[in-house]
Amino acid sequence: IRQGFPEVVFCQGKTVEQVATIVERLAERNKSVLATRASKEMYEAVRRLVPDSIYYELPRLIVVNREEARQDDDRYILVMTAGTSDIPVAEEAAITAELMGNRVTRVFDVGVAGIHRLLAQHEIIQQANVLIVVAGMEGALASVVGGMVDKPVIAVPTSVGYGANFGGLAALLAMLNSCAAGIAVVNIDNGFGAGRMASIINHMR
Amino acid sequence: IRQGFPEVVFCQGKTVEQVATIVERLAERNKSVLATRASKEMYEAVRRLVPDSIYYELPRLIVVNREEARQDDDRYILVMTAGTSDIPVAEEAAITAELMGNRVTRVFDVGVAGIHRLLAQHEIIQQANVLIVVAGMEGALASVVGGMVDKPVIAVPTSVGYGANFGGLAALLAMLNSCAAGIAVVNIDNGFGAGRMASIINHMR
Amino acid sequence: IRQGFPEVVFCQGKTVEQVATIVERLAERNKSVLATRASKEMYEAVRRLVPDSIYYELPRLIVVNREEARQDDDRYILVMTAGTSDIPVAEEAAITAELMGNRVTRVFDVGVAGIHRLLAQHEIIQQANVLIVVAGMEGALASVVGGMVDKPVIAVPTSVGYGANFGGLAALLAMLNSCAAGIAVVNIDNGFGAGRMASIINHMR
Amino acid sequence: IRQGFPEVVFCQGKTVEQVATIVERLAERNKSVLATRASKEMYEAVRRLVPDSIYYELPRLIVVNREEARQDDDRYILVMTAGTSDIPVAEEAAITAELMGNRVTRVFDVGVAGIHRLLAQHEIIQQANVLIVVAGMEGALASVVGGMVDKPVIAVPTSVGYGANFGGLAALLAMLNSCAAGIAVVNIDNGFGAGRMASIINHMR
Amino acid sequence: IRQGFPEVVFCQGKTVEQVATIVERLAERNKSVLATRASKEMYEAVRRLVPDSIYYELPRLIVVNREEARQDDDRYILVMTAGTSDIPVAEEAAITAELMGNRVTRVFDVGVAGIHRLLAQHEIIQQANVLIVVAGMEGALASVVGGMVDKPVIAVPTSVGYGANFGGLAALLAMLNSCAAGIAVVNIDNGFGAGRMASIINHMR
Amino acid sequence: IRQGFPEVVFCQGKTVEQVATIVERLAERNKSVLATRASKEMYEAVRRLVPDSIYYELPRLIVVNREEARQDDDRYILVMTAGTSDIPVAEEAAITAELMGNRVTRVFDVGVAGIHRLLAQHEIIQQANVLIVVAGMEGALASVVGGMVDKPVIAVPTSVGYGANFGGLAALLAMLNSCAAGIAVVNIDNGFGAGRMASIINHMR
Amino acid sequence: IRQGFPEVVFCQGKTVEQVATIVERLAERNKSVLATRASKEMYEAVRRLVPDSIYYELPRLIVVNREEARQDDDRYILVMTAGTSDIPVAEEAAITAELMGNRVTRVFDVGVAGIHRLLAQHEIIQQANVLIVVAGMEGALASVVGGMVDKPVIAVPTSVGYGANFGGLAALLAMLNSCAAGIAVVNIDNGFGAGRMASIINHMR
Amino acid sequence: IRQGFPEVVFCQGKTVEQVATIVERLAERNKSVLATRASKEMYEAVRRLVPDSIYYELPRLIVVNREEARQDDDRYILVMTAGTSDIPVAEEAAITAELMGNRVTRVFDVGVAGIHRLLAQHEIIQQANVLIVVAGMEGALASVVGGMVDKPVIAVPTSVGYGANFGGLAALLAMLNSCAAGIAVVNIDNGFGAGRMASIINHMR
Ligand SMILES: Nc1ncnc2c1ncn2[C@@H]1O[C@H](COP(=O)(O)O)[C@@H](O)[C@H]1O
Ligand SMILES: Nc1ncnc2c1ncn2[C@@H]1O[C@H](COP(=O)(O)O)[C@@H](O)[C@H]1O
Ligand SMILES: Nc1ncnc2c1ncn2[C@@H]1O[C@H](COP(=O)(O)O)[C@@H](O)[C@H]1O
Ligand SMILES: Nc1ncnc2c1ncn2[C@@H]1O[C@H](COP(=O)(O)O)[C@@H](O)[C@H]1O
Ligand SMILES: [Mg+2]
Ligand SMILES: [Mg+2]
Ligand SMILES: [Mg+2]
Ligand SMILES: [Mg+2]
Ligand SMILES: [Mg+2]
Ligand SMILES: [Mg+2]
Ligand SMILES: [Mg+2]
Ligand SMILES: [Mg+2]
Repeated sequence: IRQGFPEVVFCQGKTVEQVATIVERLAERNKSVLATRASKEMYEAVRRLVPDSIYYELPRLIVVNREEARQDDDRYILVMTAGTSDIPVAEEAAITAELMGNRVTRVFDVGVAGIHRLLAQHEIIQQANVLIVVAGMEGALASVVGGMVDKPVIAVPTSVGYGANFGGLAALLAMLNSCAAGIAVVNIDNGFGAGRMASIINHMR
Repeated sequence: IRQGFPEVVFCQGKTVEQVATIVERLAERNKSVLATRASKEMYEAVRRLVPDSIYYELPRLIVVNREEARQDDDRYILVMTAGTSDIPVAEEAAITAELMGNRVTRVFDVGVAGIHRLLAQHEIIQQANVLIVVAGMEGALASVVGGMVDKPVIAVPTSVGYGANFGGLAALLAMLNSCAAGIAVVNIDNGFGAGRMASIINHMR
Repeated sequence: IRQGFPEVVFCQGKTVEQVATIVERLAERNKSVLATRASKEMYEAVRRLVPDSIYYELPRLIVVNREEARQDDDRYILVMTAGTSDIPVAEEAAITAELMGNRVTRVFDVGVAGIHRLLAQHEIIQQANVLIVVAGMEGALASVVGGMVDKPVIAVPTSVGYGANFGGLAALLAMLNSCAAGIAVVNIDNGFGAGRMASIINHMR
Repeated sequence: IRQGFPEVVFCQGKTVEQVATIVERLAERNKSVLATRASKEMYEAVRRLVPDSIYYELPRLIVVNREEARQDDDRYILVMTAGTSDIPVAEEAAITAELMGNRVTRVFDVGVAGIHRLLAQHEIIQQANVLIVVAGMEGALASVVGGMVDKPVIAVPTSVGYGANFGGLAALLAMLNSCAAGIAVVNIDNGFGAGRMASIINHMR
Repeated sequence: IRQGFPEVVFCQGKTVEQVATIVERLAERNKSVLATRASKEMYEAVRRLVPDSIYYELPRLIVVNREEARQDDDRYILVMTAGTSDIPVAEEAAITAELMGNRVTRVFDVGVAGIHRLLAQHEIIQQANVLIVVAGMEGALASVVGGMVDKPVIAVPTSVGYGANFGGLAALLAMLNSCAAGIAVVNIDNGFGAGRMASIINHMR
Repeated sequence: IRQGFPEVVFCQGKTVEQVATIVERLAERNKSVLATRASKEMYEAVRRLVPDSIYYELPRLIVVNREEARQDDDRYILVMTAGTSDIPVAEEAAITAELMGNRVTRVFDVGVAGIHRLLAQHEIIQQANVLIVVAGMEGALASVVGGMVDKPVIAVPTSVGYGANFGGLAALLAMLNSCAAGIAVVNIDNGFGAGRMASIINHMR
Repeated sequence: IRQGFPEVVFCQGKTVEQVATIVERLAERNKSVLATRASKEMYEAVRRLVPDSIYYELPRLIVVNREEARQDDDRYILVMTAGTSDIPVAEEAAITAELMGNRVTRVFDVGVAGIHRLLAQHEIIQQANVLIVVAGMEGALASVVGGMVDKPVIAVPTSVGYGANFGGLAALLAMLNSCAAGIAVVNIDNGFGAGRMASIINHMR
Repeated sequence: IRQGFPEVVFCQGKTVEQVATIVERLAERNKSVLATRASKEMYEAVRRLVPDSIYYELPRLIVVNREEARQDDDRYILVMTAGTSDIPVAEEAAITAELMGNRVTRVFDVGVAGIHRLLAQHEIIQQANVLIVVAGMEGALASVVGGMVDKPVIAVPTSVGYGANFGGLAALLAMLNSCAAGIAVVNIDNGFGAGRMASIINHMR
């Protein structure tokens, strides 16, 4: 396995048949397989070949997982979102991290325009080992959270928004220009990449 | 007077001679004159013709003001900045508003990466009548403040930053996409425009 | 209520079920609810749960309003558009403001290429307390109106246009660079934000 | 002569020596030569070789003109600007047109934020044969003028402005998206091109 | 009539009903009406109300024309395209100009990559009074044609292309930066604007 | 201390006096101070007030460090560059990390166009605990390194390059779109941010 | 034949009827015809008129080929892709080159994040005469391959990716900024252009 | 030698000392060295250490060449420019190619706005083996030349121009979107890359 486990398939731009074939082949030789950006139709085709695969509709993930994940008990990755519309991307990150053996805690819909809702989560934020902050629109949540903790923050801009949002560009630029230290950024809507990065960091001893 | 008082000159792209002549002519017929983006050299030329003019070096303003401003005593415009480098733009806004007869309060260097420093100003923020939020880099301060008050917030993105800041674009897009309601935005580094807008609103009865 | 009244739901990017559930829950505890960017299908689902909700098709708003709005009688927000295609965004602004207890006057289709049609509305423009200017294409209406009044102008660029309009960017940049003072800008197509901002200002005493 | 008269040299990006040599050679064989974007230093070098050349400092033009221009007496090109800072570009256009045998009328500093100053020029605008509208910032003047006349309008965006002006992009996009018919656009700051185009049209019989 | 004749309707972004109503009203009071960017469905609705209206499918125009156009016999507008895919935009320009009483000649598919096909049209190009050059992709045709004639050239960039074409931006920038004089540019895909501009110029005496 | 140690000053956009005052004040109360993007002139002013401060010319850092850093002996942060021109940014990262108590190893000038030079460093790459990859131009180094290790990679795009590099945009986009997992990105030229992030991760136990 | 053989039709933006007619006409007079970006529906229409035409579904090509291609036996064009989703563009390049009489070798799915998979193809890369490198996302493959060979590399950025990929812009910029010499770039997704260019070079003697 | 001969140094972003040291070291072990983007000051420092080095001022190249180049006599690379201001980039390409043992022919200042000047060079264009087309502004020369020959064309956009040229973007996009086949593009102002690519192709047998 090139980059740890599990094997991962990026389904966007592939045909239903290609996805089914690839997942089947990988599922024969690996204990866990993750297929991202998979349509329901793709999952139907996969399930026929890999009956123990499951599908997460919101984050559009196909997961094969035949091993009880050894979860870290004492430390967790915190996945946060600014709004409800950011949840699909957040779930992509969260499930990716869980599949890679991490304990994941979710705190959704705590955007900075309601700062007290965010501060009410102070405890859970302080005790996280790694944080994934998922936000569209102005992407300001990453800066506020980054200033609250001394743990690494992975910021995920989302394409949620309209107008001068330009498909997530607004949040991306905001996160790259964050004046809080301890933040690094992944591609717009790249929940998988954030989950993978957070998992690598969380497993460091 | 077209748009209330005082007469305003935008010096950028004019020669020293042009600025001096225009300010002199306006100072003959008006009680107050404001020249923005004026170099020190411009001021030297103006002072020779208009001896009672004064110069603010940081915000690069020339001001002629011969009337005791009738200040609103009971209500103030709050001018806030995220960082120290935003102060010149903030002062352009503040002095503009003061010259137009407003009481102005300043709270500088309360960027969102240190949220508790910002929250410590809670009282002064809540009691403001109009707020001007000046921020470069990720421009997140506008969203947090916008969520704390029900008063109008004028957001001023600044060109402070580097790299993917793209001359203030990052902060501009963030402020336009703010998920807090009650925010409107002026051009990058446009402290004057913000001060003028805030003054108009603050004078509403 | 976080930011005054009513509670607001941004429907874009939410499922029909999510919207219906959220509006129902809010309608139980609030006198008025506003859901923006709602599809007809969303409204069908909402109406089953909240029978006294109504739907505005053009601006795609769902409104619950159980209280006779106390309208300001002596002052009004003027909502203007440059063209007919800007009306949906203008109505989002106007209905938002009305729901928040403002008297709203509409003057549509007075783009600057027919300057005399615009000047014919001189009276109604001069007497407005706050102005919302909605324009796509070159967005020039904001500058002309801004120069005519000393009241605050909220400019709303729209995505109406094609080619080098780039989804509303042309109007947005024009409005941000307006040489008239007393103008501030909200996001492209953000009628709601403009209505909200105008309402806050209009309620200032 | 490829494109009518006079011969034109674009000096930007050429060395002082190159400019001097080219202008000298052209002045030997032509009655008129125009060198655009010429520095004062370039003119010093040219004058030594071509003593009857003259220099316009603001628009940075070197002109050799040995023939009394036959001016159209009954029709004129109107060159208008929104602000004072647009004058250098406007003069590049005006002098180009004059050198090509056109009568030129200038109306400067009539930006749309002061619509009545513009309307006061109604007569002179109506009677122009071709119009050149030079404007930076939001570039709205082209639309208003375009709506007032049925004569061709050449719009010249300028790089005058700052922030979200992006070097003239704001005015360029505004002019391209103008909802007034009868407008065509040249490159940012391209006074020469506008003067040349207007001259061709003005000479049509 | 605001800007000469005929009355023009821009259908994009209007409903079928709106278009039908507007065209009907205009057709009652005017001899000619032009509706651009009209869908077939819109035309069906219009035809029921205005039976003598006709529809051009490729350029998506609805035309009402009850007057024999007085055509200029001695001078013509030449409409040229670089490729076949540019024809819809070219036809929008050509039919607009014809409706406004101009003789129009068409030369299509003479892109610069086959320079001899273009040069074979030398005669017809030289004798045109005004030229409209319609081109997508690299938009180079405008420069070559601009260098061949001393008549005004209206350049229309089209969105034909893919990849780094960015919706017509490539052709637009190329045309704005043309090193040939006597060229002015309209918005991407704006055949109507080009036809209108060319008509105004062609009617100058 | 808000975010661990040391206190950090961002000098860009501050005056010499401001920098000197701030560093002096911080040096009185802290054991270590880091001032980034400091000019030589700023250092001269600082040294007069804080004699034990030192200056790194290439990365333009002022450092005050009064405590023997407890270095991790068994694990190191690897700082890599693609070219020689990326070294100033890399040194900003490296010195930042060292000041925060990390062992740092440098491997410079191993761009992907000479893949064997890079592969020759295989051992040192494999054994790193955290990696910082600094690259301008096409920024491809991050992807290759990211594929070689299962440790976290912090990618720093630099503004090194010209033309379609657009001030570092090319490298930034490349790094954000990396197909290797385990990579996160900081702002263009943000060596400090990368060093800080790597340090936080390297200290995790 | 303007540019060697075969005749080529670019189908995008043409109607089914236009494509069928053009291909039929060309097939009457030429031994080979290539139609790019053709839909299945277009092929159905073509096949009825030109029964010996064939269709490649993935790269969307219609091919008429009545002559046994004289293949170069001793030298080949190598077509490489970074990922599976780049294959359609790669096949457009490969089939174009084959149709023009070149031997083509394919090596797909050797992206730089798995550098050893790429290096395993060392032999086949070294012995190629011309190389076409097709890659989306960060487009880094071109630089690595360009550094491995002294043969010409034609780089084809693809629009494969999402978010800050901006429709292939990320890969395009990366390839243009490659620090490896011997690389030139064609438009995003332009497999045809790359195949044509490689064929011209491969036929040089 | 990594990529054929000679060794190349990219001086931009290096100090005078670094350049001198690197060139000296390379000159000890190689017969030819090329240093691009070198300032005169850099050359002074180099000459002291490598007395037989020479300097080309316009293209800013330092060259060490101790071997009589074996020139191809029967085939030549043609380097063309659209304007005089493109010559520095063209010379960078030409001298690079000459140093690598190619015969180079120059045809400068044949922009497409004077198509007959270009066609007058028909013979010399037809007989070239590889062509380098250097053009700024609208970059149209590449398409016209590409349509005239069946030999490979390397297109080099330059940053010559102003306004909506955006530092060479206009020419770059035009060249990438060329409708002529047989064209590939290098980075803006990258004369070296074009010379290198053309040399590789020209040496193919
Ligand atoms: N059309 C709109 N554009 C921008 N913001 C909106 C819009 N409609 C609602 N909002 C904001 O979105 C918030 C609700 O978001 P949500 O909780 O995701 O429904 C409200 O408090 C409003 O401030
Ligand atoms: N300011 C200007 N902007 C754009 N084009 C210009 C300008 N001045 C001159 N030109 C054009 O540049 C050509 C001369 O270019 P050159 O031969 O390089 O001096 C003239 O024929 C004009 O068409
Ligand atoms: N996929 C493609 N991308 C870019 N250019 C193409 C493509 N396919 C064909 N062409 C070019 O387009 C020309 C045909 O265009 P058309 O006459 O519009 O069918 C051919 O000569 C090719 O040079
Ligand atoms: N003007 C130039 N533009 C782009 N790449 C260049 C240029 N000059 C040299 N190079 C490349 O830069 C490499 C040398 O970079 P360096 O080792 O940093 O001096 C050479 O191998 C060339 O491939
Ligand atoms: Mg932190
Ligand atoms: Mg608020
Ligand atoms: Mg006003
Ligand atoms: Mg008009
Ligand atoms: Mg011409
Ligand atoms: Mg990795
Ligand atoms: Mg190579
Ligand atoms: Mg060719």
